[in-house]
Amino acid sequence: MTQKRTVFFISDRTGITAETLGHSLLTQFDLELEQVTLPFVDDVVRAQKAVEQINQVATATGAKPLVFSTVVKADVRDHLRQGHATFFDFFDTFISPLERELGVPSSHAIGQAHGRGDDRLYDVRIDAMNFALNNDDGVSTHHYKDADVVIVGVSRTGKTPVSIYLALQYGIYAGNYPLTDEDLLDGRLPQCLRKHRRKLYGLSIHPERLTEIRQERRPNSTYASFQQCQMEVARAEGLFKRESIPYVNSTSISIEEIATTIIHEGRLKRRLY
Amino acid sequence: MTQKRTVFFISDRTGITAETLGHSLLTQFDLELEQVTLPFVDDVVRAQKAVEQINQVATATGAKPLVFSTVVKADVRDHLRQGHATFFDFFDTFISPLERELGVPSSHAIGQAHGRGDDRLYDVRIDAMNFALNNDDGVSTHHYKDADVVIVGVSRTGKTPVSIYLALQYGIYAGNYPLTDEDLLDGRLPQCLRKHRRKLYGLSIHPERLTEIRQERRPNSTYASFQQCQMEVARAEGLFKRESIPYVNSTSISIEEIATTIIHEGRLKRRLY
Repeated sequence: MTQKRTVFFISDRTGITAETLGHSLLTQFDLELEQVTLPFVDDVVRAQKAVEQINQVATATGAKPLVFSTVVKADVRDHLRQGHATFFDFFDTFISPLERELGVPSSHAIGQAHGRGDDRLYDVRIDAMNFALNNDDGVSTHHYKDADVVIVGVSRTGKTPVSIYLALQYGIYAGNYPLTDEDLLDGRLPQCLRKHRRKLYGLSIHPERLTEIRQERRPNSTYASFQQCQMEVARAEGLFKRESIPYVNSTSISIEEIATTIIHEGRLKRRLY
Repeated sequence: MTQKRTVFFISDRTGITAETLGHSLLTQFDLELEQVTLPFVDDVVRAQKAVEQINQVATATGAKPLVFSTVVKADVRDHLRQGHATFFDFFDTFISPLERELGVPSSHAIGQAHGRGDDRLYDVRIDAMNFALNNDDGVSTHHYKDADVVIVGVSRTGKTPVSIYLALQYGIYAGNYPLTDEDLLDGRLPQCLRKHRRKLYGLSIHPERLTEIRQERRPNSTYASFQQCQMEVARAEGLFKRESIPYVNSTSISIEEIATTIIHEGRLKRRLY
């Protein structure tokens, strides 16, 4: 029987780090989770409220909640520990060994992991995102000279979300181009892509899944038929192989996995860390 | 003097968790970092290569690199530990206490933190992103009835990246609407927003920063002048206050912080965890 548990992610800022930590561990277990994120817990009053919420859950469910905390301030953490929960303290666990190794004390400044940092990096991020939006879906191909990568694939393979993720997470300039029926029948690389051959990265997908996705958008259309999807995918993959364009099958991997695969295999240089 | 260090983020999958956790610790120190991410280190051959790279850096720089690892497989981790580095093992540190608390062994399946999960959640994510793109910059206002939130602000306050981030990270349906000169002079909520008043969330910004951002796009224009920016910001904030629209100043906070603030203060319901 699958265990049910409530898990709290508690942070003095966004909670993103606490969630990331917790998720990476919790995916290792077969659990039914009730998830609660408490961001901006940066003083003892808010810590006290969090403890009350934790204790209510413990009483109501009869199971000790799990708490993943990235809270930096010692007095806030001390309060949180008093809750009736199993407490995983990310900051406390790692900061002391890191201080010892570096030979300096940490600043104990409230979590800056997802803070603004400097304006220059913010501008890179926004600029990369605007590039992705302005060069989405082949609407404009004459900026490909400024692209780090141009993602190529048939309609609905996930080109747009991957392009945007590459921009927001890594500051990479990604354009994307949808292979049309005309391109696929021609069987050669469209003219506008030829001079950017070394920047191209293909996305493919299983025809079954592609049909499913297209049916959502245009039910019972030729566009969404299995036959059409199968033909398009086969021709696109044929093109990738003939033209030596690296490609990845997006069917069962996440946007994050596609993006990091493209960076890794394409040896792209990130602007953001 | 600022210390220089090389830090390796090593993962059997994307490296995103290792980077997120490492960054949140390293922002606590004044360090000059050389950062290297080694994703997809899922067998001992790749681990061996990683160790060679680590040792080369140790020799070349004369300083022990820091390694943040989320690798799940024990044999791969054992190899990695042999590198001449200070090793922070996120998996090993927390998985045993978690196994004890839950009373079951973990699956030791390779990192699924950014894995695909089920297709339904993938679809929610893509759907939310398409919503953000289709309802960006006020291009279409008649879908606001389906929005979880409509972000409002003058041009270049960060509405688009925040809308997209809300979609990708949290599955939230966010439209956004730019307040025009006409709206600002009128001083009342534009007609198309009135019936969605309770979904509105404002973005503001310091006029100095807004001028900087607009100068990048249209140097020496009226649009980018300090006077114009100051007027627009003052009128927008006046409108937010009169209409009791909650708002946040985006000047010195990140996209992530703006997004989580909107969720937290607006009590939005996330579709993704």
